[in-house]
Amino acid sequence: MIIVADNLHVINPCIAKAMAQMDAAPIRQMVQRCQKAGAGAIDVCSGPLKKSPRENFSFLVKTVESVTSLPLLLDTTNADALEAGLQVCTNKAIINGFSLEPAKLETILPLAVTYRTDIIGYLLDANSQVSVDAQEMMATAVDLFKACANAGLPPQQLIIDPIITPLSWEHGMRHNREVLSVLKQLTDLLGFPVRTIAGLSNLTSGSYKVSSKIKVAQTFLPMLAAAGLDMVLINMDHTDVIQTAWMCKDLLDFETFSWAQVNC
Amino acid sequence: MIIVADNLHVINPCIAKAMAQMDAAPIRQMVQRCQKAGAGAIDVCSGPLKKSPRENFSFLVKTVESVTSLPLLLDTTNADALEAGLQVCTNKAIINGFSLEPAKLETILPLAVTYRTDIIGYLLDANSQVSVDAQEMMATAVDLFKACANAGLPPQQLIIDPIITPLSWEHGMRHNREVLSVLKQLTDLLGFPVRTIAGLSNLTSGSYKVSSKIKVAQTFLPMLAAAGLDMVLINMDHTDVIQTAWMCKDLLDFETFSWAQVNC
Repeated sequence: MIIVADNLHVINPCIAKAMAQMDAAPIRQMVQRCQKAGAGAIDVCSGPLKKSPRENFSFLVKTVESVTSLPLLLDTTNADALEAGLQVCTNKAIINGFSLEPAKLETILPLAVTYRTDIIGYLLDANSQVSVDAQEMMATAVDLFKACANAGLPPQQLIIDPIITPLSWEHGMRHNREVLSVLKQLTDLLGFPVRTIAGLSNLTSGSYKVSSKIKVAQTFLPMLAAAGLDMVLINMDHTDVIQTAWMCKDLLDFETFSWAQVNC
Repeated sequence: MIIVADNLHVINPCIAKAMAQMDAAPIRQMVQRCQKAGAGAIDVCSGPLKKSPRENFSFLVKTVESVTSLPLLLDTTNADALEAGLQVCTNKAIINGFSLEPAKLETILPLAVTYRTDIIGYLLDANSQVSVDAQEMMATAVDLFKACANAGLPPQQLIIDPIITPLSWEHGMRHNREVLSVLKQLTDLLGFPVRTIAGLSNLTSGSYKVSSKIKVAQTFLPMLAAAGLDMVLINMDHTDVIQTAWMCKDLLDFETFSWAQVNC
């Protein structure tokens, strides 16, 4: 399981300000902190970038690349910004992401074909809604693979994000259990190893105690990992969750056990 | 998932002394502490009881029952002791347990038939060895169900313990991953809901830091729970593990989420 840092996010006021002002220092510091904390990839989440999207996003990508060689998840809904980012990106790039929403199919998906990158497909319907039911999510996954095939993208380049929702949402508990079921079934359904990613922080969005959120994340993450999740977006400041992620990796991937290995 | 207290165990010197001297007070206190901490059943583990097995084990069962109405797992390899315990037990009793070892098949299994109790069957071969491979474990499970059928015990009364082994054992990592696989497959293989139990403390036996053991247990427990484990033996003094167990139950069983529910 690859740990993807979700810290470089426009929702963080300090990062938002640095992005808007094209101030490299806070961005570099954040990336270095994430890398030191064990990130295996960095999600670069700029938001929609209404002003100067191309300049802003390419600045962002170049700034991140100046301090890391980790793969970057280029995370914006703005196709212009995304293309500018892809043009300057020399690290491995993954587009994050597209859904069956017509605008996304038309503007985002073709960029993965042009720039030969992996792309994340969200299990959302054409109206950007999540399904509660695993069978509906599986049908959406099949549609995403079909969309890739139609666009000329090899299916192995699609990474499925089943979309973890807040537990407090109506049907949030059931939806997230169905996500576990979907993760277990995707490879069997599609007939090849389907890669998957999920954003763990979504589970407990809202103004709760951070310590409580961390405990819930630490309990759900091993379930996701054992269900076969390949990549997980985590806040790298949550060191207990990071430790759980390493333990998951060790318990599920390693042949021999040592305490040093699990950082205990 | 039912939390079974594993604290009333002959390995605890204070409990061993109380058992040997038939001193009720420490035993009652331990049971009350376990019940207060949220146990849904109590494992009554006396060891083989070489001296006065019948008197000793029936005293133990009566003492435990004097302070709780929880189900009791009667956990001794001594068939005489076990029968004496079953004769006095008025709470729900579960025999813990038997394997394909001939002596166990001859002396322990028939007691479940006579006293119409549930019985735990260990996934061990006839020489009491664990298998590393899930397919071998599944074959052992089938043999345990056949043994029950031959003895005249309805299959629904057998609870399978796949035997968690220490991670530090040779092949311990792989074995415990195969346990997850077995838990997921048993019901499909047997064609009815197969109940399962596992002892979480086995995972990290040895002289390591308790805080480290707890973290590993907290990571593996959600994997077991999501694989469908029905009952888990836990040290009720490990409050963080107990909290993880409640969270697992909530995440996997409940329809709506509240922070109060997960004790955060």
